[in-house]
Amino acid sequence: MKFSKIPEATIRRLSTYARCLEMLEEKGDAVVSSAQLANDCGVNAAQVRKDLAYFGEFGIRGVGYYIRDLYEDIINILGLNREWRIGIIGIGNLGASLLFYKDFLKQNYKIVAAFDIDPSGVVGRVSEKMGKPMEILHPDQLKEAAKDRKIDIAIISTPASEAQKVADKVVGANIKGILNFTPSQIKVPKGVVVKNVYFTNVLDNVAYLLHSKRR
Amino acid sequence: MKFSKIPEATIRRLSTYARCLEMLEEKGDAVVSSAQLANDCGVNAAQVRKDLAYFGEFGIRGVGYYIRDLYEDIINILGLNREWRIGIIGIGNLGASLLFYKDFLKQNYKIVAAFDIDPSGVVGRVSEKMGKPMEILHPDQLKEAAKDRKIDIAIISTPASEAQKVADKVVGANIKGILNFTPSQIKVPKGVVVKNVYFTNVLDNVAYLLHSKRR
Repeated sequence: MKFSKIPEATIRRLSTYARCLEMLEEKGDAVVSSAQLANDCGVNAAQVRKDLAYFGEFGIRGVGYYIRDLYEDIINILGLNREWRIGIIGIGNLGASLLFYKDFLKQNYKIVAAFDIDPSGVVGRVSEKMGKPMEILHPDQLKEAAKDRKIDIAIISTPASEAQKVADKVVGANIKGILNFTPSQIKVPKGVVVKNVYFTNVLDNVAYLLHSKRR
Repeated sequence: MKFSKIPEATIRRLSTYARCLEMLEEKGDAVVSSAQLANDCGVNAAQVRKDLAYFGEFGIRGVGYYIRDLYEDIINILGLNREWRIGIIGIGNLGASLLFYKDFLKQNYKIVAAFDIDPSGVVGRVSEKMGKPMEILHPDQLKEAAKDRKIDIAIISTPASEAQKVADKVVGANIKGILNFTPSQIKVPKGVVVKNVYFTNVLDNVAYLLHSKRR
């Protein structure tokens, strides 16, 4: 299989399928049709079948998919059958909320380090209800911590103005994956993966669609 | 112009161009070439020109774009030249951080209402450093507040299990736009816009790319 040829949209939908299968399993179901899975995931059944076809044959004609089996297959495809060790850099309001974000913790993601230039400020930003934050390190300790704690992926949630500087440190610490929550465009050398979570762009998209409907 | 035919990816990139132009203006620049704008935004120059071509002619051959003019044109296209009034439903850790999210506030987004089933819990979750949250309403007050405070867009940051129920209330309150931060798939009637911010899917995508490189 040429994994690199698989569209990013397919990979994103696989994540969605996995989440839907998890919820179906929690409800106690054992089998799901592609029509129902598609409906639960907000896509059409042909799309589900097409996405899965990249990776082989799944499901049984006339029966559907065994939920547990398909879930495990997708988790294996996505590489989520192993632990991914994460460091979060920038523990402002958003970073603090990510530190305790339950949906990450439910998956095989483990937050193993937190960094901020102002550790004492973090204590103020993290409220009692959130939980106890782990020891906060200075970004200068990134290289050492990346090695000792085997960080696979860095989440950057600093102010936008700091994002590139921080990304350079991440690259220097030999961390190969970055999830960027800042609105800044980050540049990295080849071989490092960067994906962005741009809330405001998505909000802009909602505004645009409402605006264009009103014309 | 048939606005509905414009690819969503183009609309998302327009947001990115607007952010980049803002940063260039803050640096004191007046003019930018499509090559530089593209480089700053992490796309290629042909893409910038193609995206802008949907909306007319911009820039001056051999000169580039006047930063302030292009910024304002894009803001007008996106419908961000007016105020968008937002209600946030679900003020957990994430919702609380969105309540104080500076990048929303910098734009023409105004958070005019916050809802949670447990207002006293919110006070604990919002730390002193975050700021003073506005009065927290009960979701049952959504319809009244939507009318009184003219809410255009609802941000849903409840637990996933509550998302559909809350979305139904949003629709019932005649709010036409939803930004969904939960991993749940929300179903709404035609005419209501829903866009999703699925962090975990994007993180999964980083993990997948790292995983598939290692094969």
